[in-house]
Amino acid sequence: MLKENCGLFAVYSKDPSYNITSYIIEGLIALQHRGQESAGIAVSDGEKIQTYKGMGIVNEVFTKEVVKKMEGFFGIGHVRYSTNGFSNYTNAEPLTVKYKGEYFSVAHNGQIGNSDYLRNQFEEKGTIFITTSDTELIPHLLVTNLNGLPSSWNTEEITKLIDENISPSYSLLLLFKNKIVAFRDRFGYRPLAICETKNGIYIASEDSAFKFFNLNGAKIREIEPGEMVQIDSNGIKSFIVNKNKDYKYCFFEHIYFARPDSNIFGDNVHLMREQLGELVAKEHPVMADIVVPVMDSGFSAALGYSKASGIPMELGLMRNKYIGRTFIDPDVKDRKLSVKRKLSPVNAVIENKKIVLIDDSMVRGTTMKHIVKMLKENGAKEVHIRIASPMVVNSCFWGIDIPDKSEIIGANRTKTDIKILLDADSLEFISLEFLLNYLGKKGKNYCFHCFQVT
Amino acid sequence: MLKENCGLFAVYSKDPSYNITSYIIEGLIALQHRGQESAGIAVSDGEKIQTYKGMGIVNEVFTKEVVKKMEGFFGIGHVRYSTNGFSNYTNAEPLTVKYKGEYFSVAHNGQIGNSDYLRNQFEEKGTIFITTSDTELIPHLLVTNLNGLPSSWNTEEITKLIDENISPSYSLLLLFKNKIVAFRDRFGYRPLAICETKNGIYIASEDSAFKFFNLNGAKIREIEPGEMVQIDSNGIKSFIVNKNKDYKYCFFEHIYFARPDSNIFGDNVHLMREQLGELVAKEHPVMADIVVPVMDSGFSAALGYSKASGIPMELGLMRNKYIGRTFIDPDVKDRKLSVKRKLSPVNAVIENKKIVLIDDSMVRGTTMKHIVKMLKENGAKEVHIRIASPMVVNSCFWGIDIPDKSEIIGANRTKTDIKILLDADSLEFISLEFLLNYLGKKGKNYCFHCFQVT
Amino acid sequence: MLKENCGLFAVYSKDPSYNITSYIIEGLIALQHRGQESAGIAVSDGEKIQTYKGMGIVNEVFTKEVVKKMEGFFGIGHVRYSTNGFSNYTNAEPLTVKYKGEYFSVAHNGQIGNSDYLRNQFEEKGTIFITTSDTELIPHLLVTNLNGLPSSWNTEEITKLIDENISPSYSLLLLFKNKIVAFRDRFGYRPLAICETKNGIYIASEDSAFKFFNLNGAKIREIEPGEMVQIDSNGIKSFIVNKNKDYKYCFFEHIYFARPDSNIFGDNVHLMREQLGELVAKEHPVMADIVVPVMDSGFSAALGYSKASGIPMELGLMRNKYIGRTFIDPDVKDRKLSVKRKLSPVNAVIENKKIVLIDDSMVRGTTMKHIVKMLKENGAKEVHIRIASPMVVNSCFWGIDIPDKSEIIGANRTKTDIKILLDADSLEFISLEFLLNYLGKKGKNYCFHCFQVT
Amino acid sequence: MLKENCGLFAVYSKDPSYNITSYIIEGLIALQHRGQESAGIAVSDGEKIQTYKGMGIVNEVFTKEVVKKMEGFFGIGHVRYSTNGFSNYTNAEPLTVKYKGEYFSVAHNGQIGNSDYLRNQFEEKGTIFITTSDTELIPHLLVTNLNGLPSSWNTEEITKLIDENISPSYSLLLLFKNKIVAFRDRFGYRPLAICETKNGIYIASEDSAFKFFNLNGAKIREIEPGEMVQIDSNGIKSFIVNKNKDYKYCFFEHIYFARPDSNIFGDNVHLMREQLGELVAKEHPVMADIVVPVMDSGFSAALGYSKASGIPMELGLMRNKYIGRTFIDPDVKDRKLSVKRKLSPVNAVIENKKIVLIDDSMVRGTTMKHIVKMLKENGAKEVHIRIASPMVVNSCFWGIDIPDKSEIIGANRTKTDIKILLDADSLEFISLEFLLNYLGKKGKNYCFHCFQVT
Repeated sequence: MLKENCGLFAVYSKDPSYNITSYIIEGLIALQHRGQESAGIAVSDGEKIQTYKGMGIVNEVFTKEVVKKMEGFFGIGHVRYSTNGFSNYTNAEPLTVKYKGEYFSVAHNGQIGNSDYLRNQFEEKGTIFITTSDTELIPHLLVTNLNGLPSSWNTEEITKLIDENISPSYSLLLLFKNKIVAFRDRFGYRPLAICETKNGIYIASEDSAFKFFNLNGAKIREIEPGEMVQIDSNGIKSFIVNKNKDYKYCFFEHIYFARPDSNIFGDNVHLMREQLGELVAKEHPVMADIVVPVMDSGFSAALGYSKASGIPMELGLMRNKYIGRTFIDPDVKDRKLSVKRKLSPVNAVIENKKIVLIDDSMVRGTTMKHIVKMLKENGAKEVHIRIASPMVVNSCFWGIDIPDKSEIIGANRTKTDIKILLDADSLEFISLEFLLNYLGKKGKNYCFHCFQVT
Repeated sequence: MLKENCGLFAVYSKDPSYNITSYIIEGLIALQHRGQESAGIAVSDGEKIQTYKGMGIVNEVFTKEVVKKMEGFFGIGHVRYSTNGFSNYTNAEPLTVKYKGEYFSVAHNGQIGNSDYLRNQFEEKGTIFITTSDTELIPHLLVTNLNGLPSSWNTEEITKLIDENISPSYSLLLLFKNKIVAFRDRFGYRPLAICETKNGIYIASEDSAFKFFNLNGAKIREIEPGEMVQIDSNGIKSFIVNKNKDYKYCFFEHIYFARPDSNIFGDNVHLMREQLGELVAKEHPVMADIVVPVMDSGFSAALGYSKASGIPMELGLMRNKYIGRTFIDPDVKDRKLSVKRKLSPVNAVIENKKIVLIDDSMVRGTTMKHIVKMLKENGAKEVHIRIASPMVVNSCFWGIDIPDKSEIIGANRTKTDIKILLDADSLEFISLEFLLNYLGKKGKNYCFHCFQVT
Repeated sequence: MLKENCGLFAVYSKDPSYNITSYIIEGLIALQHRGQESAGIAVSDGEKIQTYKGMGIVNEVFTKEVVKKMEGFFGIGHVRYSTNGFSNYTNAEPLTVKYKGEYFSVAHNGQIGNSDYLRNQFEEKGTIFITTSDTELIPHLLVTNLNGLPSSWNTEEITKLIDENISPSYSLLLLFKNKIVAFRDRFGYRPLAICETKNGIYIASEDSAFKFFNLNGAKIREIEPGEMVQIDSNGIKSFIVNKNKDYKYCFFEHIYFARPDSNIFGDNVHLMREQLGELVAKEHPVMADIVVPVMDSGFSAALGYSKASGIPMELGLMRNKYIGRTFIDPDVKDRKLSVKRKLSPVNAVIENKKIVLIDDSMVRGTTMKHIVKMLKENGAKEVHIRIASPMVVNSCFWGIDIPDKSEIIGANRTKTDIKILLDADSLEFISLEFLLNYLGKKGKNYCFHCFQVT
Repeated sequence: MLKENCGLFAVYSKDPSYNITSYIIEGLIALQHRGQESAGIAVSDGEKIQTYKGMGIVNEVFTKEVVKKMEGFFGIGHVRYSTNGFSNYTNAEPLTVKYKGEYFSVAHNGQIGNSDYLRNQFEEKGTIFITTSDTELIPHLLVTNLNGLPSSWNTEEITKLIDENISPSYSLLLLFKNKIVAFRDRFGYRPLAICETKNGIYIASEDSAFKFFNLNGAKIREIEPGEMVQIDSNGIKSFIVNKNKDYKYCFFEHIYFARPDSNIFGDNVHLMREQLGELVAKEHPVMADIVVPVMDSGFSAALGYSKASGIPMELGLMRNKYIGRTFIDPDVKDRKLSVKRKLSPVNAVIENKKIVLIDDSMVRGTTMKHIVKMLKENGAKEVHIRIASPMVVNSCFWGIDIPDKSEIIGANRTKTDIKILLDADSLEFISLEFLLNYLGKKGKNYCFHCFQVT
């Protein structure tokens, strides 16, 4: 199953003489944390669509020569998560297809729920698939059901077709030669935001990507679950395609995936993480000397834990910025070495200390095991792990790269077993009940599937 | 219109434990002259198909890491001609598609005659195209007309479908998880050869690509026009799909495109070029001191001209191996400079000499103009151009990258005008009549479209 | 004047059959923060010395092929700070020279005080210089004054010669075919540490570079100012070359240059920075809502400020990990844009807040100006800058890359002027008096030249 | 012993506002055949000298960014031959040194005869060597013996010093901030030519490098053995430093090293090679069907052999332009495979033919062995090797990369033994007597050391 953690960005310049290629690229750089496997853009000058994509991070894929050759005053971009495969170029997005002599493009963040069913249906009718990405289903769906040239298709019909046939999760960008269409699924699994300034209109997976631009007087808001936005020479047109109010915001976006300075699902990510740190402090207090975050992922939560507990936060583990490849022989190197190169204990801070070690989440647990060992070898007296989220016990089918259950440390073990495995003095997570209690009525808007046994 | 000058290579190891990935790559290197834009391979281990391709020459696309990850005892490969576009990755071949959970791959050399008609037909039925290459029509044709899994399709049915629906030109390689299928169109526009040794079976656009392998006791032959060859665990099965005897071998393969050491359409390429040199000497003799080839393209023909005329051949123009980029400012550099960097006159040879300047063909004529100028500036007394092929007057629609008629020097001018334009003392081509007379009954097997006004 | 901020690393394996090349490289990666311009190593197998160096960071310079070709059980390495020049390869270190058929190598961290005088002296005697680095003076000094082959030179004589002739600052590594010599200048400007384990002996600019290795039972200490250490087949030999007790540890190593997890000059760097944060809080308290560090440089100090003041620390500014090149036109981009791409305000945190903004130091002040502007534009009510070090008012001649006085914001302006320039609500530094009072008698061991008007 | 096969190029623009950097680079590209290991240039704007060099061919070393940063209206350049070492950057030339605050540069083609003696002498006086190249001796010689700043040194004194102290071979370029000096050793081992146009003055190892420039009305001549040329704002000044008339032109430059379109030592290289082909035909005729050159090295000689013998030349062996790396496992590949990838037999030409196989020279003989085998395996009836030069029996100490005698096939075997080893039907070289007889009184000007047993 192909995991689809991705980032989306779109720009529409109100001045059609303005080339926005470099602006899409800047937006994608701001969303680079959402995917480092491939990057791509598609731009339209009102007549033709040009597409360029490649493997690697944005700065590896694009060159000044490429940017010069692209011409358009509106366009869409996509960054994709790194997997281990080596032949995934064809899966890079935007996926641009040609139909009746016209090109149109799709960029997708999420994971289509009924993709196997849809593929079978299409294959019965003689459709072949050139990519291995679910995204290819979308153009097939559109051309099978809509008449005329793509640029003449009615936007509401397009999005209704998608809403009725494609099971979430998806946040989508569609580029036609004459317009951009953005559509967020009825459950709102993945974030999507829109920004209008006096010069242009921007869409992004996270609103922090807008900050690069001049935001004087900008109007910024989240696109609603089930909402479609069309941007063309007549400006913005919005339409609620599906009035569903039973949302399923991915809570893992808050815990781990989104940038701390983004605001998604109505909350700032850093502050949410800080609150989660406070929650785990309240639910699972411990007598300790210092709070140590696993940098950088556990930083916000550690701030919250420290505030709620009164135990001072300290830099007990430093992240090494320059790691790259190692030249040590493979038979010498191991996961322990790899952790050692990434994180370095600050001995003067941790020696003889009882430590509360904070991280945002724990999925496989392999890194955590080496961290505990490293802290103890360097003098820590006790290590109490506090995870600022509930225990992950289940896979995700809506777009977060959580591995098979066999690899999820919490899927097959009791908390006590894990504590022993990690050689921690204690180990605690926020319980789902405690979290739900804290979230109150907001809680019903989230998907907590990975925290629940099914 | 996308020009499809390409090279094909396939390997089937009789020992299924043998990984043939590196052998396909070696075969593609031997065919690199047929295309430098992109290179790709698809290999099967009997169960799964893996594809890897990229932009650039074979040695840029493939790395040892990639080769290690590919596993298969049979597979196909493709090199593609360089065009100016920058977003052609999706057009790299082999084109691997997924249908009913199974992959199959296509690699194509040629240009599909009825591609516009076919695309329209498919689009009427709701098909979209992800590449801009005609090759994508082939899998669409197959899945629309055949039932069951691709690996269960009957090879004769596959090739009959293609023969009946796809207008030449094409030489094709198809890879299924359980077999390789090679098919050459009924007119035989593009060459295709097969070789069987005690270890394996090889298919290549030109037989010179087989030489890399141990050919002790090898059986080598051309695949016939209209012939299909299937290779699987039962060995080679051949079948004449179309009994047409009205062949249209591309004469430009002999003149320019193929390697001198290849044997195509029943003749060795170097010897054919030498004969063409003799022909132009006989039809258009001239009093001169030396025969000078435009290196390397005119070398074989110059040998022939020298033999037939008795005028000694000399190295009057040297090809510079190390040219690469220039750092001279664009406003200083011009086409003349570019010719100067590539070809260098040997003054001691040409001074005060009447020169017969030989090249294999003349399409645009721009380089030739600068060569004549360079020879005269460096002391040549007279320059008589003799082209060892008929005058190109027409575009090609079957796979040779001959430009629009507006750019063909011979399409819009008389020979006299061209002579004046090039500042040559005389200019002659082989007349088509003279060539046909020489070829005799073999002549009816060739396509001479680019030499004929239509 | 060439600034010499660098990192040094050496390894001596007790087992002479062990190739230590990859270990020097790992040590240099741990010291990469001390220099990203060039990297190099020199290794000895007891008979011959091999040198390899190149421009760029360690992971760019070294390849597996290079590492395989290097053979040695002891050796030295060097990373060098980035300057703007493009022809500095010849200045990469270690500098390996040949004398009487034997090679020896030098790697240097610091800046030679009397280099102009020494160069003139040597040139009077007919010496030429091939590099533009002061380091080249050292081999000239040695061969001019010592007899016999380099491997026969007495280590005490070598270091005495250097001590008597070369004005600090320098921490030095010398590699001869039969030994390593490390020498720290009598003032101890730059740090240098040594570590002995059961397998080998390591020397590094900062002790955090030892952590990569197995340190079970390791003996780690700083090499003293004026101390020479010789490592050969007889083990470690130490010798105090200069008994001077008037040390001049570079305080900027503590403030900015060294890694937080290193221990230099007797103190942990992170804890020292945290103390400096406490100091500025005590000397310059302010009424505010939150403490915001300029990430990552101001993090440790902000922790200290928060503790001492009781004002909570918050992530008000996020560092963007993925920045790279921008594709925006040069006429559009400016320093403001560059700051925007690097640091991103967390609006939900800073809106309507009175902020204490903490950084470790301020030299040019240009970045700080844009940060204040960005915070205010995003809703901060007040911004009070607190710098966790004294005001820089003077250039450095001992190896820290502090620019000419004309570019130092504090060299030519009153604090009030700077506050206005930065549009801050208040601006304070630790006064040198307050710092000295805190340091007590340790204070006399430091160089504070850049904080003092001369 | 370091072999010094190199290429030199210099430009002096008469217009001091003209930046000649890109012109030196073009000159070096024209001389790339003389060395592919490293490339470098040094340019002067009359005040300062900038140097840039790197490993690889010219097009790899230089970028547009570098060219933009270099400023000068005169300068020198150097390309260096490839050896196997990996740490030879420091040996790249020009070698720029600093003396009394001034830079000057040296570029050298040849091999200094008394380098060991000179190194010892300098080391006795305390000199160290930073490169392993003999070139470093030259600046040491100059600063030891001349007073004042380098730019004030008298050019005649400079060249006399070199002539009196440095044993040939050398062709030298010296760059001072105010002039270029070129000097060819008294024996004239290596070629060196000068060209004056209305715009500038050019110096090159071979005159073919001038062709890139506008040569209307240019004066081109060889610099004489023992002649020094100084170029500065007063124009060209020439001076015969050493009146020796006993020349030792390297005959291997004619046989193999120089470009066919160059004129060196008074003769065109291609015509000389053609004559050598005629000579071996006359001295060693053989009954055969075709003359086959080993392409490209044997081409000129094969033309001559064909003319003199009346046996037609044919393309029996084709050179493959695209070879690059192979991906075949090392245990499968061998030298035979490597030859197979480079040279390909044209079977239709060689089958059942008696072949005269022509090459320019034979040193190791390993490639020739595989060529004979390949020709016979592909149907050649007989293979008669004719080498268009005398048998190499001795090493070279004057700059040609001829290996140790142990690796020279002719140094330790009779001709009959070699013929058997190569499995040739006959094998002949030009005898030195026959060659000398042909050359007549010109013969005394050449060095034939490698053809003579010592």
